Amino acid sequence: MIEADYVTTDPDVLAAYSSDQAGFVRAGRPVALARPRETADVVRVLEYAHEHRIPVVPQGARTGMSGGATAVDGAILLSLERMDRILDIDEVDHTATVQPGVVNAVLSKAVAEKGLFYPPDPGSWESSTIGGNVATNAGGLCCVKYGVTSDFVRHLEVVLADGRVLRTGRRTAKGVAGYDLVRLITGSEGTLGVVTEVTVALRPAAEKPLTALAFFHTSAAACRAVTAYLGTGRRPSVLEFMDKATVDAVSAYRDLGFPDDVGAVLIAQSDRGPAAPDDLEAFAVAARECEAMEVFVASDQAEADLLIEARRLVGVALGRLGDQLVDDVCVPRSRLAELIEGIAEIGGEHGVAVPCCGHAGDGNLHPTVVFDAGDPESVRRGQAAFDAIMALGLRLGGTITGEHGVGTLKRAWLETELGEVGLSVHQAVKRAFDPHGILNPGKVIHGKPS
Amino acid sequence: MIEADYVTTDPDVLAAYSSDQAGFVRAGRPVALARPRETADVVRVLEYAHEHRIPVVPQGARTGMSGGATAVDGAILLSLERMDRILDIDEVDHTATVQPGVVNAVLSKAVAEKGLFYPPDPGSWESSTIGGNVATNAGGLCCVKYGVTSDFVRHLEVVLADGRVLRTGRRTAKGVAGYDLVRLITGSEGTLGVVTEVTVALRPAAEKPLTALAFFHTSAAACRAVTAYLGTGRRPSVLEFMDKATVDAVSAYRDLGFPDDVGAVLIAQSDRGPAAPDDLEAFAVAARECEAMEVFVASDQAEADLLIEARRLVGVALGRLGDQLVDDVCVPRSRLAELIEGIAEIGGEHGVAVPCCGHAGDGNLHPTVVFDAGDPESVRRGQAAFDAIMALGLRLGGTITGEHGVGTLKRAWLETELGEVGLSVHQAVKRAFDPHGILNPGKVIHGKPS
Ligand SMILES: Cc1cc2nc3c(=O)[nH]c(=O)nc-3n(C[C@H](O)[C@H](O)[C@H](O)COP(=O)(O)OP(=O)(O)OC[C@H]3O[C@@H](n4cnc5c(N)ncnc54)[C@H](O)[C@@H]3O)c2cc1C
Ligand SMILES: Cc1cc2nc3c(=O)[nH]c(=O)nc-3n(C[C@H](O)[C@H](O)[C@H](O)COP(=O)(O)OP(=O)(O)OC[C@H]3O[C@@H](n4cnc5c(N)ncnc54)[C@H](O)[C@@H]3O)c2cc1C
Repeated sequence: MIEADYVTTDPDVLAAYSSDQAGFVRAGRPVALARPRETADVVRVLEYAHEHRIPVVPQGARTGMSGGATAVDGAILLSLERMDRILDIDEVDHTATVQPGVVNAVLSKAVAEKGLFYPPDPGSWESSTIGGNVATNAGGLCCVKYGVTSDFVRHLEVVLADGRVLRTGRRTAKGVAGYDLVRLITGSEGTLGVVTEVTVALRPAAEKPLTALAFFHTSAAACRAVTAYLGTGRRPSVLEFMDKATVDAVSAYRDLGFPDDVGAVLIAQSDRGPAAPDDLEAFAVAARECEAMEVFVASDQAEADLLIEARRLVGVALGRLGDQLVDDVCVPRSRLAELIEGIAEIGGEHGVAVPCCGHAGDGNLHPTVVFDAGDPESVRRGQAAFDAIMALGLRLGGTITGEHGVGTLKRAWLETELGEVGLSVHQAVKRAFDPHGILNPGKVIHGKPS
Repeated sequence: MIEADYVTTDPDVLAAYSSDQAGFVRAGRPVALARPRETADVVRVLEYAHEHRIPVVPQGARTGMSGGATAVDGAILLSLERMDRILDIDEVDHTATVQPGVVNAVLSKAVAEKGLFYPPDPGSWESSTIGGNVATNAGGLCCVKYGVTSDFVRHLEVVLADGRVLRTGRRTAKGVAGYDLVRLITGSEGTLGVVTEVTVALRPAAEKPLTALAFFHTSAAACRAVTAYLGTGRRPSVLEFMDKATVDAVSAYRDLGFPDDVGAVLIAQSDRGPAAPDDLEAFAVAARECEAMEVFVASDQAEADLLIEARRLVGVALGRLGDQLVDDVCVPRSRLAELIEGIAEIGGEHGVAVPCCGHAGDGNLHPTVVFDAGDPESVRRGQAAFDAIMALGLRLGGTITGEHGVGTLKRAWLETELGEVGLSVHQAVKRAFDPHGILNPGKVIHGKPS
């Protein structure tokens, strides 16, 4: 193994670094953990691994939900967490350049102090890293208005499988010189290269958002309201959906004074400052047209915070229900109601609870399959429901993952989504970057490339 | 050659289809022109070409400015112009699916009739095709607010070099299943595959824009105003720059009543309806802070049209000056003033006029090198100036092409921009898609892949 102060083979440490947040994924046994501080160290690890054909698993904060950062047998775990310096914030060009281990919240706060704004806000933003966000092309609540991580990545430094350093992209707002390798690598989940430096675009700070909340009798009505509202041409900065089971779980965790017979909730925000009240009024109109039971529009910040509280509590409230596997399907917005209805049926068929919430404005739903990890039969039923949900998503013209990625959890399903030609092009691209298949093997696409 | 009613070998027709709009590029001699109507025909052409190792040059409307669609020796020209059907416009999901030969203006008007909006608006929009726009990742005036073509492409059908049909991307607003092949192919200038179907995202119609225009004594002052204005957080739907030479050319072509001593012009638009006057007032404030000579804010549509007229006339007005080569460099916005100043020096050194205009909000400038095609010495000087401008763009942290692409015209410069590792990754990707190098050979990257 490489002799360096940033490498350890301590079994306890290795065990602690072997898994991410995915359910149903078994970690392999790594041989070492490297936690470099500089690109040169990453180069050394890759050169060594390439020469000896040792698998390398890049890791950020291991908040991933699909097993992308989970250890494989015989691998070097390559954690970027110590490469955590913000290198530059440019207040004229509105860019920031960071090492990959910088935590999203650290960057967001640093740019906010300069009156700037880094929109991508995955639920994990207080712990996940920019490198991990880039590698998974993370989304978040703000996407519906501002886009996902890849919409903000301009330039990358990437250590390739053989240790060469690729600098790709540009620092300009536009550019079409050559292939878009930045986009190819963004979202590639550590299978094409190790991201060692990221330049992202920033925006001037947005105004503090105002919030509205609407109760509906049914999910279908809530979905109609989404379409009606977005049809007005307004771009909410947040547009979230919660189904009855999710609302019930939240209410059980903390009484927010919600009516008993709520069938679904929509929460909308606008951060357009003086135009925000008008935006939310349009939301209220759309909601009422779609037979909302009640609509609340916050008139100040305190009220706004209260209304979004329900969405904030979802994670912890659902956590109380049992073990869980958070799915992540995305369908064309017009099919959202069918998706939600279908998931309820799937839950019934397999005898598991599947509360649903998600980013309604994007058609991106997070059905949470609740099961009992101690009961193999419950695990089996949970797994079956999880699979059935992806099949449904594909049937509705959607994708098996809107933002959490493929990792190992959804690798088999990816083959179905890509089809034969798509899969073979993926394999050809993988081979072009990583001919010996040492980078995060078994993640995203299957098998050892030839 | 393939026997089919969509294939011709008529030398006059071949000659007519052999070039695009690039200067300084010599067309090769093609062997045939295929103008298929269906994907199946494209498959047949590629299968044949692949088997016989015949180069294929995909073509849209041949409005390209970099020689991407120009014939190479022995090639089949594959024009997609007859695949011009709009297949679907979805008014709920806000998407359109088209064949590649649909002209941008035809799509834009069709969706506008349904209250929808397809923002990418290259200057060539009345003739260039969606397939060509995708293959070049075309920009336009609206980019500064809405983004470029790739920001709207969701799903592609692509015929690969060997005739297999790849369907890639998704119809949903978000998705991270697998590598982003859509982005990889978008902007690849026909070197990775032939685009035979495109699904783009649409937006609800924007309001008609209002316009403001500011005169400055110097380009430097205009550039400071750009930074000041964008620093307010507003997103103009258009923010264009014209230097003194451009303004003079326009005034010589048509008297718009501009003052004599104008050193530079900025034109801003806002399409935020009721918020537009306020946006433009902020522009006026920023311009005045930066010592604008005069600022005009249109108070109605007629006035707005008048103010944008100057920008519209640039192409034809510059055309009067002589033969021209339109360059297309993009720099970080903070370096725009240096770029403009440096270009004036380059023009002086090489004894050619180089009027500059461009998309100031993006740092994307179009210096137009004016020369006399009949005078070899003038051509030489023009070419030298053109090269010097790209070198300057790179030195300022920019790119050799903001939106026109590499084609053959900028292939050598691309190698400089990419560097050794970048170039070798490009070649590896090209080989992965097109192992025999039959797709648009010699464009974008050099030489026959191994
Ligand atoms: C509570 C919670 C909420 C979440 N909410 C969201 C959400 O709203 N939206 C969303 O998209 N995701 C969400 N996630 C999933 C996860 O947080 C994101 O995928 C995040 O981007 C992962 O970042 P990380 O630093 O933890 O990366 P890791 O989990 O460590 O790694 C993720 C993947 O990226 C690779 N990787 C990491 N760093 C690098 C690097 N420097 N170079 C190359 N490859 C690398 C890994 O190999 C792995 O494949 C959530 C997770 C949790 C636990
Ligand atoms: C007056 C004028 C103004 C312009 N303004 C702008 C502008 O504002 N912004 C901008 O970005 N560009 C601009 N351009 C450049 C040009 O119009 C764009 O690049 C446009 O996208 C080219 O479209 P086209 O259909 O003419 O493609 P072509 O010129 O025929 O081809 C362009 C490239 O795409 C490839 N290609 C074409 N169709 C396909 C397909 N279906 N599949 C695979 N490859 C294909 C070709 O091989 C070639 O490499 C302008 C050009 C002119 C003449």
